[in-house]
Amino acid sequence: MTTLTDARPLALDPDRLLPVEPGTREIARRLYAAVSELPIISPHGHVPPEWLADDTPFTDPTSLLVAPDHYVFRLLHAQGVSLTDLGVGGRPLTAEGSRRAWRLLAEHWTAFRGTPSRFWMDSVLADVFGVTERLSRESADRIFDRIADTIDAPHFRPRALMDRFGIEVLATTDDPVDDLHHHRTLREDAGFAPRVVPTFRPDRYLEPSRADFADLMTDLARASSIDTGSYQGYLAALEDRRRFFKANGAVSSDHSHADVVTLSLDEKEAARIYDAALRGVVSPTDATAFRRHMLVEMARMATEDGLVMTLHPGVHRSHHTPTLQRFGPDTGHDIPTTVEFTRGLQPLLDRFGTADGFQLILFTLDETVLSREIAPLAGFYPSVYAGAPWWFLDAPEAVRRFRGAVTETAGFYRTSGFIDDTRAFLSIPARHDMSRRLDSGYLAQLVAEHRLDEDEALETAVDLVTTIPRKAFKL
Amino acid sequence: MTTLTDARPLALDPDRLLPVEPGTREIARRLYAAVSELPIISPHGHVPPEWLADDTPFTDPTSLLVAPDHYVFRLLHAQGVSLTDLGVGGRPLTAEGSRRAWRLLAEHWTAFRGTPSRFWMDSVLADVFGVTERLSRESADRIFDRIADTIDAPHFRPRALMDRFGIEVLATTDDPVDDLHHHRTLREDAGFAPRVVPTFRPDRYLEPSRADFADLMTDLARASSIDTGSYQGYLAALEDRRRFFKANGAVSSDHSHADVVTLSLDEKEAARIYDAALRGVVSPTDATAFRRHMLVEMARMATEDGLVMTLHPGVHRSHHTPTLQRFGPDTGHDIPTTVEFTRGLQPLLDRFGTADGFQLILFTLDETVLSREIAPLAGFYPSVYAGAPWWFLDAPEAVRRFRGAVTETAGFYRTSGFIDDTRAFLSIPARHDMSRRLDSGYLAQLVAEHRLDEDEALETAVDLVTTIPRKAFKL
Amino acid sequence: MTTLTDARPLALDPDRLLPVEPGTREIARRLYAAVSELPIISPHGHVPPEWLADDTPFTDPTSLLVAPDHYVFRLLHAQGVSLTDLGVGGRPLTAEGSRRAWRLLAEHWTAFRGTPSRFWMDSVLADVFGVTERLSRESADRIFDRIADTIDAPHFRPRALMDRFGIEVLATTDDPVDDLHHHRTLREDAGFAPRVVPTFRPDRYLEPSRADFADLMTDLARASSIDTGSYQGYLAALEDRRRFFKANGAVSSDHSHADVVTLSLDEKEAARIYDAALRGVVSPTDATAFRRHMLVEMARMATEDGLVMTLHPGVHRSHHTPTLQRFGPDTGHDIPTTVEFTRGLQPLLDRFGTADGFQLILFTLDETVLSREIAPLAGFYPSVYAGAPWWFLDAPEAVRRFRGAVTETAGFYRTSGFIDDTRAFLSIPARHDMSRRLDSGYLAQLVAEHRLDEDEALETAVDLVTTIPRKAFKL
Repeated sequence: MTTLTDARPLALDPDRLLPVEPGTREIARRLYAAVSELPIISPHGHVPPEWLADDTPFTDPTSLLVAPDHYVFRLLHAQGVSLTDLGVGGRPLTAEGSRRAWRLLAEHWTAFRGTPSRFWMDSVLADVFGVTERLSRESADRIFDRIADTIDAPHFRPRALMDRFGIEVLATTDDPVDDLHHHRTLREDAGFAPRVVPTFRPDRYLEPSRADFADLMTDLARASSIDTGSYQGYLAALEDRRRFFKANGAVSSDHSHADVVTLSLDEKEAARIYDAALRGVVSPTDATAFRRHMLVEMARMATEDGLVMTLHPGVHRSHHTPTLQRFGPDTGHDIPTTVEFTRGLQPLLDRFGTADGFQLILFTLDETVLSREIAPLAGFYPSVYAGAPWWFLDAPEAVRRFRGAVTETAGFYRTSGFIDDTRAFLSIPARHDMSRRLDSGYLAQLVAEHRLDEDEALETAVDLVTTIPRKAFKL
Repeated sequence: MTTLTDARPLALDPDRLLPVEPGTREIARRLYAAVSELPIISPHGHVPPEWLADDTPFTDPTSLLVAPDHYVFRLLHAQGVSLTDLGVGGRPLTAEGSRRAWRLLAEHWTAFRGTPSRFWMDSVLADVFGVTERLSRESADRIFDRIADTIDAPHFRPRALMDRFGIEVLATTDDPVDDLHHHRTLREDAGFAPRVVPTFRPDRYLEPSRADFADLMTDLARASSIDTGSYQGYLAALEDRRRFFKANGAVSSDHSHADVVTLSLDEKEAARIYDAALRGVVSPTDATAFRRHMLVEMARMATEDGLVMTLHPGVHRSHHTPTLQRFGPDTGHDIPTTVEFTRGLQPLLDRFGTADGFQLILFTLDETVLSREIAPLAGFYPSVYAGAPWWFLDAPEAVRRFRGAVTETAGFYRTSGFIDDTRAFLSIPARHDMSRRLDSGYLAQLVAEHRLDEDEALETAVDLVTTIPRKAFKL
Repeated sequence: MTTLTDARPLALDPDRLLPVEPGTREIARRLYAAVSELPIISPHGHVPPEWLADDTPFTDPTSLLVAPDHYVFRLLHAQGVSLTDLGVGGRPLTAEGSRRAWRLLAEHWTAFRGTPSRFWMDSVLADVFGVTERLSRESADRIFDRIADTIDAPHFRPRALMDRFGIEVLATTDDPVDDLHHHRTLREDAGFAPRVVPTFRPDRYLEPSRADFADLMTDLARASSIDTGSYQGYLAALEDRRRFFKANGAVSSDHSHADVVTLSLDEKEAARIYDAALRGVVSPTDATAFRRHMLVEMARMATEDGLVMTLHPGVHRSHHTPTLQRFGPDTGHDIPTTVEFTRGLQPLLDRFGTADGFQLILFTLDETVLSREIAPLAGFYPSVYAGAPWWFLDAPEAVRRFRGAVTETAGFYRTSGFIDDTRAFLSIPARHDMSRRLDSGYLAQLVAEHRLDEDEALETAVDLVTTIPRKAFKL
C-alpha cells in the first residue's frame, strides 16, 4: 500500500456535508445556521443511565471510544483485528492494552474512510478533545495521551458533558423489571436540568420460545407484585410495569423482533400458549404467533397508557455463533434482513391505526420499504410516523436516500425527527450535527429547485429538531 | 411551531425542477424549451368521460381540487383531518362545507412541503387560476373565492380546458360492460378535436373469488349478448367486449391485481373452476390460479386484437377496513407491497414475449424491480416496455431514480413515455410539465457528463413526448 | 421520429463521467490523473484463453464487436432485430452478413443512448480504431471498413493488444475438466509478460438435477483419474481439479447458482443423494439440498487450498425457452431475481467466516442487498468482500449507487476492486477506465464534502486499482 506522510492536520470544515454546488451551499448555510446551536433532543438511545446518575468518570480512551462502539470494532474485526485486543465482550483492558487497542484503531484508520464512524470520530477528537492532527500510526500515542489527560478532568464527567453538549432530553433503553432508580436520582436532583427518561423495552418478555421465559415471568411478577402464573396476570403485570415506566418519565416503548407480522389470538388460545411457555413446552409456531399477538397487545396498552410505540425490526441477531459464544451478544454481527410492513402491520393498524392518541414509529434497515410501505402508511394513518434512518443507515448518503424516498409521499411532518440510537455518548452531538447538516442540505436542494420557498425551508429545518420530535415522541 | 408571516407571493420559477448546477441547467433549459409547448399525450388516466361528454361545469373548489385527489386528502387525513370534513366518499359538501374544507387544506399546507401535490397545486393555482399569493391560513378565503369565481366562467368548462391544456389524446379507464356512449358522443362531435379513448379494465371479471362474480357474469352476458354460462362463453364475451372497445377507439387493456404471477391451466381445468365460481363455491387457491391463467388469456387475446396490455400490480387495496366501510374504496389507504416479475411473467412471456404486435407495459410501485427485473425484461423482449413512474413514484426524485435505474439497461426507447394516471383533471398539464422538466434534466446530466451529445439529447427529449408514447400505446 | 443530420464528430471528452460541479470536477481530475495509466488487473472475466494462446486474428467487425456481446445484441433484439441477423448462436456470418449486421446496429444506435454499451463502443471506436465520426446509418459502412482494415494488421492480434491495453493480470473462466493447455502455453512463453490465470467454475458439477450429471461425473473422473462412482470419490475428484487449477495459476473459484442458501448435510445423506443422482433418480428437493451443501463443501475446500471463492447468484437463466432452443444459452435473456445472503450464507459463515485465509466475494444483481446484507457482512467477517457492480449494474449510475450503498457501512477496503466480467475483449480498457473515472468522482465528492482529505482520496483511488484487487483475489 502506498503510504502517507503522517502528521496531517485535523480541522473540521464549517461546510462539511453541505451541498457542493455553490448556490445550494449558500442556502444550506443559512438553514444550518438557524439550527446548529439548538438544544439536542435524543428520544431514543442506549446511554447507560448510571453514567449520569453516578456521574462516573471515564476510564481510558479505548473503553470510552472503541469498546462500546460496535460500528468501530466491527470494521476492525473485518480487517482481521481480534475482538479480544479491543476489549470487547466485557473483559477490561489494562492501561497498556488500552493503548495497544488505540494503536490498532490508528493502524487501520484507512478502513474507515467514507464511513460515518470516521466522521463522528473526527468530530469528537476535534470538538471534544481539541485534537488538531489526523489519527494515524504516528499520531496515535499523542492523541491517546491527550484523550487520557482530558477525561481525568472534572469538567469531563458525564453530567458536565450533558450540559456542554446542550442535551435537553435523553432517553435510555431499559428492561421492564428495572426499578429505574437511576432515573429517579436524576429527576430528584434539582441541580440537574436535562430530562433523562427511560424507555420500556419488553422484547424478552414477549418471546415465549426463550429458554429463560419462566424465569423472566418470575422477575416480572416480582417487579410488579402481580402473579404472572396466568396469561391474565401476565398482561396485568406488563400493564403495571408500563404505568410504572410512564410514572418515571417514559414516553415510549421500543420493540425489536425478527419481523413485524401482527395478529390477534383469541384469549383462550393466547392463554393456552402462555401456559405451555411457562412449562417450557411451547412449539416454535405457537411462540411466534404469541409474540405477534403480543405486539398488538402492546398497541392496545399504548392506546390506554399513551406510550408511543417504536418498532426496530428485521435484524438477524448474532449471526456468527462462535463470536456470540466467546464475546456475547451485540458484538458487531447483527445483520439486517428483508422486512415487510404492509401486510404484517395490517391487523394492528386495522384495530388501532386511527385510535385517539396512538402513535407508532416505524424504523427499518431494509431501505426498500421506505418509499414502498412506510411512507404510504405514514401518509395515511394519523398514528404512523416514518422513523429516522437507523443504525447502518445513520450515515450521510443513507440519510439523503431516506429523505428522497420518504418526503415525496409523506412530507417532513410525518417523520420522527432524528434519533441517535447510540451508547457512544461523546458522539451524540456529532450525530445530531450530521443530521442537521444533511437536512439543511436536503431542504436547500428543494429551495434551489424552486420546490419550496426559503422561509418555509427555514421553518421546516427548525421544526425538524424541535416540534417534530416533540410531537412524534410526545415530549 | 414557528409561524410565518402570511401573504407570501406565489410565483412559478421558469427553472423549477431543472438541475441546480449552472452548466447543466443551461443545457436542460435548451432541451426543455424544445418540448415545453408540445401537445399532451395522456394514454392512461382516470378522468371521467362524462365530464367531457356533458361538458359539466365544475361546482366548487373543494370538489374540484381536494375531494377527488387521494394524494391530497390522504395526507390531510394523516394530519388528523376527518375525511368527512373533506367531502370524501361521495357525500357532497355544502357551500360552507366546501369553504371549511379548503381552509383545512390551507391550515395543513406545511404537511405538503416536499411533495408533488404541493408542486402540482402551486402550478394549478398560478397557471390555471392566476393566483399570486401562497396558500396559507390567511390567504385561504381569497384563493377560494378566486377559484370559485373562475370556475363559473364558460371558458372554464372541461372541453375548453382540454383545448387550453393542449391535450391531444386522453385515455379514460372503463368497465368492460360500459356502453362507451360518452366516448361516442365525443368522437361524433366534429367540433371537438382531441382524441378521447376508452381503456378496457377487466379486473373484476377475472377474479372468481369475488362475491358478486355471478352477477358480473350476467352483466357481461348482457353487454356482449353472449351466454356466459360456460367458460367458452365467458372467453367469447370478453373477446367481444375487447373488440367493442377497440372499435370505440381503445388502444389498451389495463390490469391491476395483487401480483403478476402467470400460468396456463388446461381448458378443462379452467372450465371446472369457472363453473365453481358461477355457483359461488370456488376455493381461494383455484380462484387465484384462474386469475393468473386469465392474465395469460388476456395476452393471448391481445395478440389477436392488438390491444396493448398494461400491468399495474402490487397494491394492498383498502388497507384500513373501518375507512373502507365508512368511505368506500380509493380513499387513500391503498398501500404498495413487494412485487415480482421475472418468475411471475415467465409463462406469459414464454408464449407471447416475441409474438408479432404484442406489447406489454410494466408499471411498479416497488422500485426494487426497476433495475433488477423490468429493465432487463424490456432490454430483451420486443414486447416489453418499462412503464413510467406511477402513483407514489410520480414525483421528482422518484422519477430521477426511475431513469437512473432503467436507462443503463434498457435505454430510453424501451420505456412507455409519461402517463399521468390521474382524475385530478386540472393537474394534467402540471404533471406532464413536471415529467418534461425532469427528463430534460436527466438528459442534460448525460450531456454534461459527455455520455450523450446535445443534439441526441434534444432528439430524445422530443421523442419521449411524441414517438415513444405513440409507439408504446399504438397511438 | 425527428432525424439527425448524420456525420457528427466522435470525440472522447477528457472529463467524461467526472462530476459536473466544477470544484468537484477539479478534484476528480487530479485523482483520475493518478490512476488513469496504471496497469489493468482483471481478476474475473470471460475472454477465451485460446484467443491469446493462438493469438488468433479477429475476423470481422460484427464477430468482434456485436455477436459476442450480449449487452449489445439483447437491446437490438428488443428493438425487433432478429438474433439470426446478428450472428448470434454460433452460425457464422458471411462477409455481407457481417456488414448487414453492423448496419442494423447503426440504424438502432439511438436505442443505446444512456447505456454503458454506448459508452464502451464509443471508447473502442475512438481509442482502438481511431474513428472520428459518430456511428449512424450514414457512417456505418465507413466505420465498418475502418474496423475491418484495422483488424487485419499484425499489431492488432490479441497478444499485442494485451500489451497495448496494459493488462497485467487477466483471469478466464474455465470448466473443471479443462486441461488448461492454453494457460500453460501462455505461461511457458517467456516473451509473453501478462499473467493469464484460469478460474475454477464448477456449477454444472454441483447440480445433481441436471440430465447430464452422470456424464459430467464420467468427465470428472477422466480428468482427475479418480473414480467418481461414490460421493467420497466425487469430493476427492473436485479437490484434485481445484489443486490442478491452482497449480496452473488459478486464484479463485466462481459459483453462480439460483440462490446462495447454504447448509451442511451429514455425509451419509449427501452420499445417498449423490448415488441417486448418478442413477438419474434424484428428487428436485434433494438436488437443491445437495447443491446448497456443496457450496459449503467448496468453502471447506477453499480453506484448504486457498482459492478465493466468488459468488454470482440470482439469475433466472434463459428466460425465453424458444430463444434458448433456437440460439442456445447466454443469448440475452438471463433475467435477475431477488437474492438473499443474510440467512442463506449463515451456515457457511458460521463454519468458515473467520477461518484463516478464507475469502468470499459476494456479487449481486439485486441492489437491495448491498446496504442491507453485503456491506454489513463485509463489515464484520474478515473473509467477506463486497464484489464490484456486476453485469447489468456495471454502469455509471449503478456504480455510484454501489459506492453509496456500500461505503458507509464497509468502507473501501472491504470491496473487491473492479471486475470487467466480459468476453468483449476490446472493451476491457474502456470498462476499467469507466470504473476509475467513477471512483475518482465518488472520492472527489467525499473530499468536496470534507469527509475525506485529498491525500487520503488519492491513496484510496490508487489502492482501488492495485492493493485492493490484489488482496481480494490473492494476486
